[in-house]
Amino acid sequence: MTSAIDAPTSTTAPVRTSPARALVCRGCGAEYPLAAQHACFECFGPLEVAYDPAALAQVTRAQIEAGPRNIWRYAGLLPAGQDAAARVTLDPGFTPLVAAPALAAELGITAPVHVKDDSANPTHSFKDRVVSVALTAARGLGFTRFACASTGNLANSVAAHAARAGVPSIVFIPGDLEQGKIVTTAVYGGELVAIDGSYDDVNRLCGELVETDEFEDTAFVNVNVRPFYAEGSKTLGYEVAEQLGWRIPSQVVIPMASGELLTKVDKAFSELVEIGLVDAPADGWTVFGAQSAGCNPIATALHQGTDTITPVKPTGIAKSLNIGDPAAGAYAIEAVRRTGGWMDYADDEEIRAGIRLLARTTGVFAETAGGVTVAVLKKLVDAGKLDPAKETVVFNTGEGLKTLDAVAGQVGPTHRIKPSLRGVRDAGLLG
Amino acid sequence: MTSAIDAPTSTTAPVRTSPARALVCRGCGAEYPLAAQHACFECFGPLEVAYDPAALAQVTRAQIEAGPRNIWRYAGLLPAGQDAAARVTLDPGFTPLVAAPALAAELGITAPVHVKDDSANPTHSFKDRVVSVALTAARGLGFTRFACASTGNLANSVAAHAARAGVPSIVFIPGDLEQGKIVTTAVYGGELVAIDGSYDDVNRLCGELVETDEFEDTAFVNVNVRPFYAEGSKTLGYEVAEQLGWRIPSQVVIPMASGELLTKVDKAFSELVEIGLVDAPADGWTVFGAQSAGCNPIATALHQGTDTITPVKPTGIAKSLNIGDPAAGAYAIEAVRRTGGWMDYADDEEIRAGIRLLARTTGVFAETAGGVTVAVLKKLVDAGKLDPAKETVVFNTGEGLKTLDAVAGQVGPTHRIKPSLRGVRDAGLLG
Ligand SMILES: Cc1ncc(COP(=O)(O)O)c(C=O)c1O
Ligand SMILES: Cc1ncc(COP(=O)(O)O)c(C=O)c1O
Ligand SMILES: [Zn+2]
Ligand SMILES: [Zn+2]
Repeated sequence: MTSAIDAPTSTTAPVRTSPARALVCRGCGAEYPLAAQHACFECFGPLEVAYDPAALAQVTRAQIEAGPRNIWRYAGLLPAGQDAAARVTLDPGFTPLVAAPALAAELGITAPVHVKDDSANPTHSFKDRVVSVALTAARGLGFTRFACASTGNLANSVAAHAARAGVPSIVFIPGDLEQGKIVTTAVYGGELVAIDGSYDDVNRLCGELVETDEFEDTAFVNVNVRPFYAEGSKTLGYEVAEQLGWRIPSQVVIPMASGELLTKVDKAFSELVEIGLVDAPADGWTVFGAQSAGCNPIATALHQGTDTITPVKPTGIAKSLNIGDPAAGAYAIEAVRRTGGWMDYADDEEIRAGIRLLARTTGVFAETAGGVTVAVLKKLVDAGKLDPAKETVVFNTGEGLKTLDAVAGQVGPTHRIKPSLRGVRDAGLLG
Repeated sequence: MTSAIDAPTSTTAPVRTSPARALVCRGCGAEYPLAAQHACFECFGPLEVAYDPAALAQVTRAQIEAGPRNIWRYAGLLPAGQDAAARVTLDPGFTPLVAAPALAAELGITAPVHVKDDSANPTHSFKDRVVSVALTAARGLGFTRFACASTGNLANSVAAHAARAGVPSIVFIPGDLEQGKIVTTAVYGGELVAIDGSYDDVNRLCGELVETDEFEDTAFVNVNVRPFYAEGSKTLGYEVAEQLGWRIPSQVVIPMASGELLTKVDKAFSELVEIGLVDAPADGWTVFGAQSAGCNPIATALHQGTDTITPVKPTGIAKSLNIGDPAAGAYAIEAVRRTGGWMDYADDEEIRAGIRLLARTTGVFAETAGGVTVAVLKKLVDAGKLDPAKETVVFNTGEGLKTLDAVAGQVGPTHRIKPSLRGVRDAGLLG
């Protein structure tokens, strides 16, 4: 007789233990235990979470589909969050995949175009995904204060997560961010440190702070617990595949700051194939990267045919993407080259036009990062780099309300009238 | 032998036809066919959708739970939207019900408090619910242009819905709205008419426009198709009950502009009991209404013990609630009196404090309307009107990003430093 304890787990029961096995150096392959470490002691390369293949292989579609409608349905493929009660989370994810026929038509794309609209997350950017995973891991590792170096969206998300969890937070930002990023972070009541410098200065400083005794209790989501943080972006890839009916799209267009998001969406697709949750597409998939003209070090390196990223001093309105020295840039180039994709960049006027084009054709109001992505989509089509006959998913990773000034000078009331039928008639609105 | 056609419908199959039966006058009970009519020809009273009780009685929990994670899971209880392909919608709804223990503790409430966070809707207010139902009905009635009179959130939602559907829109607003409401409406590319006057002037003008030949093809969501629009708010009540495990909470606190939302949440609870989807709570439920001090005609009438609302000229920062002549005010008073509740109002400073209290304790950043509701919750507890020993649901109906200026003067970076360890130390952040 088989006892209940010995019986095989039902395929829809949630995963109870983390499938993560170790941290592995992306550079030299050295392995480290799962802890708050982000760089290799051997070669200083970045560390990445490695999984137990047997654990991943146990994850089934039925199990995922029986899970909650948020990132935690993929807990079996993430390094933390298997115990629902121990999560630090706003339950982000499962954001809409919006069909965009009018956008496709306007750009001359004949195959379906979808917008993955991550502005629908709790703090209205994809950063809620990475923060939920990072802070859940951080709590498990014993940290009692939450922090980050941010270009804006991360700040907002960390502060909100900390408020919900009742944990103190300290967030570091460049001093010149948009009001829509500063107020939405400050309102939660944590410490908010504005630094007289660029994001790259902020990031360097946080790298020093994690080494101090005073910050020993502090998890910087994108510094000392970065390997866990980065894995959160995989959920965007998983969701797109699941929302397409467990299918990987032919082409994806993804904005880049550090380049991490792009590499993790690609990694998510690979994992789904390896585990057998989706069939390997006959022609594979192609990854495209989008930057702004004011901060294009990754795209420039690709265009120059090198892997060596030359840091830049960022300018321009796409502040959330303004990382001049991108940590995952070389890995983003690798993914784009391997899949036969390309990268391009858009200037401020193109970004504004991208925001407006997306809004007008889909009803989705994106922040500047989304404007970058749509503008680059257009350029890729015009340049013949992106195949208009293949299904394409465009990632909108942030919310237009956070960067209102980008378009505030261009859009507004079409008419201003007195409150009377005569006013309406004089405005030409009554025939 | 039972043929497939004769077999009873499975309990989880979606509803295919509208349960709506007629429009009925809330004043004299006169009945009218389901059409674009909002006032009674007999008594000028407002019309409301009436349902076929037999059709409603067929709706089951299993059927709802098998539906999509948005308002359309309740299609069997709505006047339109049963045919998924014919919907005009951004698929709003099923927004988070957030447990708020820290908020409860700070206010001295001993029973659970939950925040129904409707800022999570596609255009970040509860208005997406009413707009989806109204425009779906409007398309079914043959209208080819979408319009509204708005205090801001409705404008945003109508413009976004129209963009997604590819239908022209014309939206009327008072000229002095927040930038966060104007830009988010204008960006979708429809007509946006700013009127030199109050919302009540705008509303009056739209009432005249629907009578003109030039606007014959135009559905004003809250004028000529208002009965359908109003029903959309019921979904907030249904969701709260479903999210509590098919249970009606003891107390709800709801912001009021026209007063419609409050009456429809109450109606939703009544319907759920009548249909048998929830048990009637032993002590019933109690409905509380929240206004701002700058626009408190409904609360004032209740305080004065009358049903007759004296219109006011609205002032103050809670612009989305600034309806001085509220169409459903008397019905809101009726619901509050019948359930043993109360109404109160908050001034601008209390509203700002309410926004910050909610953010700090729950991680939810509300617009001024949410600040009103939280501030009034506090007043109701302090005044002994709301029972701190009973479970309470507070409705946050809008997003803080749309009214940034409300708190921008009060919150910001807690420190401004140079990018160095010395800078951090000088700021007192290194022990
Ligand atoms: C809205 C938005 N999109 C995209 C990105 C890019 O993320 P990554 O640094 O992973 O490339 C960011 C980073 O801050 C962001 O805020
Ligand atoms: C954010 C918000 N909350 C509440 C309301 C109140 O709605 P009602 O007019 O149904 O009372 C409105 C109305 O515009 C609103 O915008
Ligand atoms: Zn190494
Ligand atoms: Zn009547």
